[in-house]
Amino acid sequence: MPYIKIEVTREGVTREQKQDLIKGVTDLITRVLNKDPQLTHVVIQEIELDDWGYAGEQVSVLREKGITAEKK
Amino acid sequence: MPYIKIEVTREGVTREQKQDLIKGVTDLITRVLNKDPQLTHVVIQEIELDDWGYAGEQVSVLREKGITAEKK
Amino acid sequence: MPYIKIEVTREGVTREQKQDLIKGVTDLITRVLNKDPQLTHVVIQEIELDDWGYAGEQVSVLREKGITAEKK
Amino acid sequence: MPYIKIEVTREGVTREQKQDLIKGVTDLITRVLNKDPQLTHVVIQEIELDDWGYAGEQVSVLREKGITAEKK
Amino acid sequence: MPYIKIEVTREGVTREQKQDLIKGVTDLITRVLNKDPQLTHVVIQEIELDDWGYAGEQVSVLREKGITAEKK
Amino acid sequence: MPYIKIEVTREGVTREQKQDLIKGVTDLITRVLNKDPQLTHVVIQEIELDDWGYAGEQVSVLREKGITAEKK
Repeated sequence: MPYIKIEVTREGVTREQKQDLIKGVTDLITRVLNKDPQLTHVVIQEIELDDWGYAGEQVSVLREKGITAEKK
Repeated sequence: MPYIKIEVTREGVTREQKQDLIKGVTDLITRVLNKDPQLTHVVIQEIELDDWGYAGEQVSVLREKGITAEKK
Repeated sequence: MPYIKIEVTREGVTREQKQDLIKGVTDLITRVLNKDPQLTHVVIQEIELDDWGYAGEQVSVLREKGITAEKK
Repeated sequence: MPYIKIEVTREGVTREQKQDLIKGVTDLITRVLNKDPQLTHVVIQEIELDDWGYAGEQVSVLREKGITAEKK
Repeated sequence: MPYIKIEVTREGVTREQKQDLIKGVTDLITRVLNKDPQLTHVVIQEIELDDWGYAGEQVSVLREKGITAEKK
Repeated sequence: MPYIKIEVTREGVTREQKQDLIKGVTDLITRVLNKDPQLTHVVIQEIELDDWGYAGEQVSVLREKGITAEKK
């Protein structure tokens, strides 16, 4: 009976990326824990840049300064 | 001091249904646990169909295939 | 596809009370939203009294002062 | 590795107030727990007045009755 | 800045399985969203069988009846 | 009607530190948003080191390697 919540900043996540996340997490849970996918729910929640804080600063401010969350 | 979060897919839940959920959950908590309703908070969060995954698929895709979550 | 999280202070909630909460919430969701119970998950999380704060005070401290959360 | 979620009713919280909350919570965590701010994430979630229930009533209804959540 | 919460029933999940979940989810987020793993936090929460309800019944009761969540 | 959840790793947080967090967050919310403290609930959730993942690794493994979350 797994439930997974994914919180990410709202920065242009596409419908296809969301489907990849849902499929990927469900497959992972099935493979690692042998859980029935019919019992696995995944919820994605996009958070506005003003509403996420990191190291004491709003992500919207960090982005204005040119600081991204991208993998280098 | 109960706090209850209800997550449902965003599919036309009306203001009256939300009030019924809030009233119903609060009454249930009061009846079963004898808690003061003044200390009970209920939060409803509607989730877009692209953002909820079930059995590895987006609910928006399931709905396009005609699969609903309705009680049979 | 509802998911419901119930957070309450850990103060002797019995197995039967938990079953009543689970049954009651699921029935409520089914009745108000016409959702398939097979798609409804309820999670109860008990919180230690030191870990819940209300009005700026730990509930453990409030209880020591004789302040309860019971319905009057 | 702290993660903090702040849920408030959506009633005109400004960008500056959000920044104050993010900064204030991060500073508090750093001061009390000596945590690296680079590992502290804060997420603010605003909840519509129809979606928050208190004492069994929607906050939107409470507001229509003139009942606020303001500090007296 | 992703944050992922995984809730599963407490049924003998090993340390190695938890590591596989953490590694797998972080890799997935990195691959699909191109996020810096240094900004990705994953939290696993195990839920007692009395505290998870499915279709209106406690999972502990379902297990006593021989109903599992295993993939067929 | 604010509700705040604080998730931290379980690494010897004392009762006094928890009280400081509860008091500090409640005061912050009252000061920034002018909310009645009687409507503010704070929940602290401590997470085992095996259950928190950062950058794809369990925090318990990071700690064994001598990597802490302390402010430098």
